[in-house]
Amino acid sequence: MIERYLEDYEAGQTFTTGRLTVDAEQIKAFAAQFDPQPFHLDEEAAKRTVFKGLAASGFHTASLVMRLIVVSEDRPVGGFIGLGIEEMRWPRPVRPGDELHVQIEVLEVRPSASRPGQGMIKVRTTTLNQNNEAVQVSRNSLLVPCRPGNTFIKHAESSSVSPAVAQRIDKQGEGR
Amino acid sequence: MIERYLEDYEAGQTFTTGRLTVDAEQIKAFAAQFDPQPFHLDEEAAKRTVFKGLAASGFHTASLVMRLIVVSEDRPVGGFIGLGIEEMRWPRPVRPGDELHVQIEVLEVRPSASRPGQGMIKVRTTTLNQNNEAVQVSRNSLLVPCRPGNTFIKHAESSSVSPAVAQRIDKQGEGR
Repeated sequence: MIERYLEDYEAGQTFTTGRLTVDAEQIKAFAAQFDPQPFHLDEEAAKRTVFKGLAASGFHTASLVMRLIVVSEDRPVGGFIGLGIEEMRWPRPVRPGDELHVQIEVLEVRPSASRPGQGMIKVRTTTLNQNNEAVQVSRNSLLVPCRPGNTFIKHAESSSVSPAVAQRIDKQGEGR
Repeated sequence: MIERYLEDYEAGQTFTTGRLTVDAEQIKAFAAQFDPQPFHLDEEAAKRTVFKGLAASGFHTASLVMRLIVVSEDRPVGGFIGLGIEEMRWPRPVRPGDELHVQIEVLEVRPSASRPGQGMIKVRTTTLNQNNEAVQVSRNSLLVPCRPGNTFIKHAESSSVSPAVAQRIDKQGEGR
């Protein structure tokens, strides 16, 4: 298991998760609980909808993606803590039998201006099926702690972090 | 039950869902399946995390919100079909015992340029707990069918829809 502090991330890094397969029973069970609509609940009824067949709820897909990410062996210290989603799309439906995996690309890394000792990474996550077709694309921000003792200052000085932020981080480091 | 075509929506309309309560067992069960992290799985472990106590997974909250919306008595014809999310944030954690409801505001209504006979509504959904504190805020786009026979042309002429789009819609109407 690799656990990363903010200083261990940089824009351009990519990560790939393991894989999982979703079946019709899982699609229907999730839908019955959270998204009880015909195209997620029943094969026959689904044929007569815009989906033209059974398809997973978008939030089922999003939840399966979360699982793939959370159980991966390479993660932020403290876990995957979402600050928010900037964009999420489902370019095509997830069907029974689809095998999913997720590619994560780090887009941005920066210390938090409001949360001392913490920072944010922005990532693009692309979820692909067994044919390498994208079924979910999102951009998310995650909360990631800075390394105790604060080596981020080195990165901060050579990046776009403002002197005020860098100085605050530096003072924190002194306070430990 | 009220079922709405695109023509039945307009910017500024608001809708409020029913309510549901989430308990600790539901929070842990969802987490075990989709987001197995200590702050979603175990009260004691959660106290030592940034959440300072058990909190629902963000996608559990999103899924509960979906349920509240889907079972409401006022809906688009054909159901709630998400085209995508532009923004989703969780301003505060959902805790065991929280009672949630959702306020939906229509931000924008427009016919689709690429999907004849269909359109899009953009909505802001704000999910509130029993203290009327926002626990989830999002902006989403939904696919909504136009009324057969196409009365939307009337709205289109008085709105910002381009003449070319209005003309295409008009021809569709004639073709039925």
